[in-house]
This record gives sequence, C-alpha cells and structure tokens, in this order.
Amino acid sequence: MKILAFDVFGTVVDWYGSIVHEVKRLRLDLDPGQFALDWRAGYQPAMARVRSGELGWTRIDDLHRMILDDLLARYRISLEETARHDLNLIWHRLSPWPDAVQGLTRLKAQYTIVTLSNGNMSLLTEMAKRAGLPWDCILSAEVFRHYKPDPQTYLGVCDLFGVRPSEMMLVAAHKDDLDAALALGCKTAFVERPLEFGPDKTVDLAREPRFDIHACDFIDLANQLCH
Amino acid sequence: MKILAFDVFGTVVDWYGSIVHEVKRLRLDLDPGQFALDWRAGYQPAMARVRSGELGWTRIDDLHRMILDDLLARYRISLEETARHDLNLIWHRLSPWPDAVQGLTRLKAQYTIVTLSNGNMSLLTEMAKRAGLPWDCILSAEVFRHYKPDPQTYLGVCDLFGVRPSEMMLVAAHKDDLDAALALGCKTAFVERPLEFGPDKTVDLAREPRFDIHACDFIDLANQLCH
Repeated sequence: MKILAFDVFGTVVDWYGSIVHEVKRLRLDLDPGQFALDWRAGYQPAMARVRSGELGWTRIDDLHRMILDDLLARYRISLEETARHDLNLIWHRLSPWPDAVQGLTRLKAQYTIVTLSNGNMSLLTEMAKRAGLPWDCILSAEVFRHYKPDPQTYLGVCDLFGVRPSEMMLVAAHKDDLDAALALGCKTAFVERPLEFGPDKTVDLAREPRFDIHACDFIDLANQLCH
Repeated sequence: MKILAFDVFGTVVDWYGSIVHEVKRLRLDLDPGQFALDWRAGYQPAMARVRSGELGWTRIDDLHRMILDDLLARYRISLEETARHDLNLIWHRLSPWPDAVQGLTRLKAQYTIVTLSNGNMSLLTEMAKRAGLPWDCILSAEVFRHYKPDPQTYLGVCDLFGVRPSEMMLVAAHKDDLDAALALGCKTAFVERPLEFGPDKTVDLAREPRFDIHACDFIDLANQLCH
C-alpha cells in the first residue's frame, strides 16, 4: 500500500463546527447549527445536477454559492454581496479536527498522502495553507471532472500514481464513499467522526468487517498503519 | 499578485548535476555529462509529437523512457529492465538547487506557491516529498492535458485559482517559457541558473526589461517579492 487518499469535508475538517462559529460571529438572525446542516444538505443534490448533465461542470465554490443564495432567501436574511461572497468562502477556512495535522504528519513519513475531495483545487489549497495540512499532493474531483462517488475519481488517483487499486487506500468518515472505492478494489479505512453533524445528531459508527481499517481518529489510524 | 507558479526542471532542480551523479554511480560506459544533455535534448521533440497529435496524451515518465531506450541503443549500452526502469525514475529524484527550499519557504509565507511543470503529477509529488519542496499545490501539464508553452497551461492555473493572468507570476529560468506567459498577460520572473546545462555550456542570462523580475536565485527572488 503506497497511497493514502483522504476524503476532506467531515473526515479531515469540521465543517459543522466551523460554520456554526462563523455564523455566530456574523450575528445572523438564524439557528447556526440548523443553517450549517441545511447548507451541507444542499451539497449532494447540487452535485447530482452536475452528474446528470442538468448543469455543466460546476466547481464546489459555485455550488456552495447557489445553495447559500437559496438558503438566505428561504431564511429571509439580507446580506450584501461582499459579505455573502466572504461567507461562501468559509469552506476554504474550515478547521481541522484536533488530531488531523498530527496524524497526517505521521502517516506522511511512510505513505504518500493526498486529498480526494469534491472540493475544488483552490478551496483545498487555501484550506491546507491555513490549517497546516501537510498533503504531498492535492487532488480533487475538479481534476477528474467527476464527483465522487464516480469511479473516475478513485481510479484517477491510481492512474496518476501508476498504482493498482489495491495499492491505494481511501480514508473517509462516510461509508458510501468507502463502498464506492471498495467496489473498485481499493483498500478502505473508516474513521469515526461522531460530531460531524453537530452534538445533536447520531452518526453510524458501527464497525464494518468489509473495511480494512476502523479507526477512532487519525492518531489511531497512524498507530494501525505505521510501523 | 497572489499566485507564484514555478517551472521545475532547471529552475527548481538541477537535472544535469543529478543525472551526472547517478550515471557515475552506475558506472555506465559513457560520458555522464553528454548523456544528461542528450536525454534532456530529446524532451522538446518528444513533447512536440504529443502536441502535433502524432502521439496521444503521453506523460513525461513515458516520454523520458522512450528517449532513454533510444539513447541506450545509440550508446550500445545494455541495461536490464529493472535497472532501466529505475534509471528512468531519476527524474523523480532530482536535487533542488541549494537556494530552492529556503527561497520557496520564504515566498510561501506571502504567496500561494505552485508548480507549473511539464513533469507528471507523481514525478513532481515524489520529487517534492524527497527534497522537502514546500509547494502549496502541485500542478502539471498532466492536469491540463497540454504541455507548456501551450496557453491552456498558464491560463489553467489562473482558472483553478480564480485569478486574472496579471495576478499570477511565472518563475522560470527559460525565456521562451516566460515569453509564453507574458503574451497572456501574466507576470514574469527570470531566475539565473548558469549551471543548468553543466559547467561547459553558456546560458543566456541577459537581463530583459520585458520581464518583471530578474533574480540571481530564489533567495534574491524572495528579497525582491517579500516585504
């Protein structure tokens, strides 16, 4: 096993907590936690519109903005363009889970660690720069012009690095993402992120024998993968 | 100016010195310096075959291997497959110029620093990992499916980061590369690499007023660009 490819939103960074923090700071007249959940809930349907061909290739920054505009209208919040644009870029500034940088740094000593995220390249680059995420290489759906879970994304990573699927491991907190990689012959590591959707939501953390690794965080992942 | 995009072969790393060093270590029966020059000389014609459509998209690893096989036949050197494959991957292991890591580290504090190389993604990733090159993001002709100096490469970087050409600066030791970027409205920085082709070749280091910056190395570049 040579390449570790990481899902990012929810697996490496805490989108819920970061958005709640920012929305509180802006003193918007809404429930910050529900707003974060609503924004994230628009994500899969927006990518589905790209996948179906209803929308041409559209990067996540633009999908996030479409969802945000709809949400602000629904919440009857008026926000001028500069503030709206800046709020949309919160996704570039998400904070990593407390174990992420230390775990990645250990894993990097033995493996090539890359992102495999639906986030666009500039989003992932700015996020890594701010948070000190030590990626060897940033890869995105944007490079492959396909969103996960399309096979072109997982196989695209293998192709770039000239490795077989069995030499690449996807690391994710989401079982559907891991199942798509597993179906192609990739190795899989599930990481528990019980707070991904905030303190009031339950997350399915059940151990699944079909995944190669079950880790409680990136430190545990490094303990299991590094010798 | 937000993005600094770096040419890599010759600008960041010393391909001539690295190949000479490796060929001496292998004790091949040939002139190491001439061999390095011959290998590199096959590079532009090989990319021209891709650009013309004679070859489909072919990554640099494979072009380097085609040139190497031709060269070894011409030099009448027999080398078994494993050794040949390993020699071809010397391009993943090129050493940076002595000022490169320090200069890039300073520039990274103020700018987003990315590669814009004809080298493929795995080559650039492995090189960065070995040499400690602190890129914010690795970008390659392979992502754009066009080799420099095709406009799609320079403009591709601008598009990914959502910046105008005037907000991106190409850094290179090669005037033709800089001229292609300049024609598109990008900023340009010429860096002197007098030893790129070894100690016996003369390199055109003349200061050109059309380029925004003329630097003697990456430390000088950081001195001029960082406040």
